[in-house]
Parts: sequence; C-alpha cells; structure tokens
Amino acid sequence: MANDHILKRFDEELERLNATINEMGGLTEAQFAKALQAVRDRDTAIAEEVIADDARVDALDVVVQEQTVKMLALRQPMAVDLRVVLSSIKIAAALERIADYAKNTAKRSIVLAQGSAPPSAVAGIDRLGRLVRAALKDVLDAFADDDVAKARDVWDRDEEIDQVYTGLFRELLTYMMEDPRTITACTHLLFMAKNIERAGDHVTNIAELVSFRNTGQNFAEARRKGSGALYTTDTAP
Amino acid sequence: MANDHILKRFDEELERLNATINEMGGLTEAQFAKALQAVRDRDTAIAEEVIADDARVDALDVVVQEQTVKMLALRQPMAVDLRVVLSSIKIAAALERIADYAKNTAKRSIVLAQGSAPPSAVAGIDRLGRLVRAALKDVLDAFADDDVAKARDVWDRDEEIDQVYTGLFRELLTYMMEDPRTITACTHLLFMAKNIERAGDHVTNIAELVSFRNTGQNFAEARRKGSGALYTTDTAP
Repeated sequence: MANDHILKRFDEELERLNATINEMGGLTEAQFAKALQAVRDRDTAIAEEVIADDARVDALDVVVQEQTVKMLALRQPMAVDLRVVLSSIKIAAALERIADYAKNTAKRSIVLAQGSAPPSAVAGIDRLGRLVRAALKDVLDAFADDDVAKARDVWDRDEEIDQVYTGLFRELLTYMMEDPRTITACTHLLFMAKNIERAGDHVTNIAELVSFRNTGQNFAEARRKGSGALYTTDTAP
Repeated sequence: MANDHILKRFDEELERLNATINEMGGLTEAQFAKALQAVRDRDTAIAEEVIADDARVDALDVVVQEQTVKMLALRQPMAVDLRVVLSSIKIAAALERIADYAKNTAKRSIVLAQGSAPPSAVAGIDRLGRLVRAALKDVLDAFADDDVAKARDVWDRDEEIDQVYTGLFRELLTYMMEDPRTITACTHLLFMAKNIERAGDHVTNIAELVSFRNTGQNFAEARRKGSGALYTTDTAP
C-alpha cells in the first residue's frame, strides 16, 4: 500500500515534469519561429519580443531543475525511472540553449535590419532555419508521444542540415569576397547560420535523449561527427 | 551516531566530488593553454592532442554527474549541502563547455595553419586568450580555496575581456575589408575570438557559482549584460 502510494506520487510528479517540458518546448519553438520571422521580414518589434521572452524559457528550465531535484531526493528513482528523470534535465537544458540561439539570432536581426544584407543570403538563413524549425517541432512531438521512430527520423536529418549550413557558409564567404561592403552584414549572417546549425545539433541531442529514455539505447555509440569530419562541416568555414 | 555516520559519508563524498572538479579544472586549463599555443605556433600536433583529449574532460563531467546524482539520491542534502552539490553540477558543465571551445579553437587552428592569416590578428587572438586563461586559472584557485574575494575579482574582469573581444572583432572586419584574400582566414579568427569570449563568459559563471555555494548570494541579481548592452559586445560584430 505504502509502496503503491509512493509509486503513484512519482507518476504524478513525472506527469507534471513532462508537462513542464512540453510547455518549455512549445515556447522554444515559438521563439525560434519568431526569430526567423524577424530576420526574414526585418521586423525589429518581433525581435524585441523574442529577446524579452527568453527569460520565460529560462524560468521553465529552473522549474524543471527544481522538479527533478525534488524527485531525485524524495523518490530515489532507480533504473528506468532514474533514466527518465535524468534525461528530462538534459532535454530542458537543450531547449534552453536552443532558445538562447533564437535570442542571439533575434539580436543580430535588429543590427542587420539597419544595413544592406544580400537578400539571397537572408533567404539562405531562412531556408536553413526552416529545416531546423521542422526538426524541432518533430522532436517535440516525438518526446510527447514517446515515438522513438520519429526521433530517429529527426536524428537522420541532422546530416542534411549540416550540408545546407556548409553550403550557406561558402555562399556568404563568396559575397564578402565579391563585395567587401557586405562584410559586416555577412559576418552577422555567418554567426546567425552558426547559431541555427548549433540549435540543430541540440535538436539532434534531444532526439537521442528521447531514444535513451524509452529504450536505454542511443542511436549510435559514437556521434557521426567523429574525427573523420574534423575538417569539414564541424569547423566550417 | 547513525546521523554522524551519514554526515561523515556525505563529507567524504563531497571531498571526492571536489577532487573530481579540481581534476577537471586542471585538465580544462591545460586544454585551453594548448589550444592557444596551437594557434600561436601553428602547431598542428598540439592541436590534434587537444582534440583527442577533449574526451577526457567529457568523461570527468560524466563522473561528476554520477557522483552528484548518487549524493542527491542517497544523502538527500538540504540547504547549504544541496547548494554545494547543485553548484558542482553547474561548475562541471561550465568546464565542459570551456573545453569544447578549446577543442573548436584547436580545430580551426589546423585549418588556419594552412592559409595566410594576418600575423597581428593572430597576435590579437593570443592576447584575448591569455586574459581568459588567467581568469580561468584564478577562478579554479578561488573554487579550490573557497575564496569569494578572488572569484569576485575574476567576475569584475569579464568587462575587460568583452572590450578586448569587441576591439579584436572590429580589427578583423577591417582586415577583411582591406584585403578580401584574408576573408576565409579572418572568418576562422572571428569564430575563434567568439569561442574565447564565450569561454570567458563561462569563467564568469563559475565565479558566480563559487560565490553562490559559499554565501548563497550571486554577485549581482542581474548579469551586467542586460538589455542595455544588446547592441554592443553581445551581438558584436
């Protein structure tokens, strides 16, 4: 009886924890989408919103930390339950980082709106951003539904994101070389592209964690970006 | 008696945890110093060492996570003890990120060694790097000695690091504009500078955590980089 009671409490707390992460995920997705909109439409009002609202994502990350510490201390979960609690901390941390990248992209969009960025380069950022945004949406669905196959699909798409990033990077270098007046604007676009690509890496990490919490297994023992790729996308330019 | 026994166990575990973090700190400092050396001396062998040894830092971070989860679950620390355990997790995470930035800098140094980077720009990276390296060394000493005054000194120095970073950034943009043939090399230097500046931010975070674990207080309720600095160093270029 007492044991059932403890188990019931743990399940209730886990449900609350999942709800917090789902809320954090929804907010992060909205922040990311709005940051892309700010870049695309040169909309500084939206950018300011993204910058201000980042504190809400940070606050939810603190809630996740509090909830998990309480669960670890009071319920002393073992095996599967411990795995679920620990992966929750890491998923929240990844979402917090993705939101940070969205905030930084929004900040740069404000500076960019004042200058003359090559429109096709801005379109390239949007293309890369939409890929990552779709992956983020799908990995959040995979988390909510414990859908490991969907998480695997997201994990597989990281390669395409890296390829698009590398192509965009080369394109930006070309713009700068052809017209040095675009160097300042293109430097902002380079950092935006890097932000978005890094956000994509965190989406991939979340996909791994969805697999890990459900199966105890990662998709691969070693990440594909091993030493073989040192001098390609990982260090691009 | 039983309670004393539990307390003694906690203290022993805490000592072991601190030893792990000190080891992780020493290794991270060495990695950071070697990455700077790789850039300065165009030494690709040292760069390869940094890249390979990053796994050792990651492994120590996993050890810290295991030690802290065990302490939270078995000892159920409250108040001060809980603060110390939780800050340990965050200090380890910050060190892991600093080591990542060292690794990325080392990777870029290999690409850079093949091209023709402006020597004075490379010297600028070294200057910025030495500031952050000194801050890292001091904050690790502050952690080991529970020296809040020393941590405060490190925290204060972040402003100088940001200023040097911003100056370097403008310098790099000038090089690119004056000689578009340097664009590819300077783009690597831009990302290196950003890596080093971000490592400096994490050093500042560790300084905050040294204060928090000893006093329960941060140096400031809000970080100095508030909304007022949005369009200056934080989004530089």
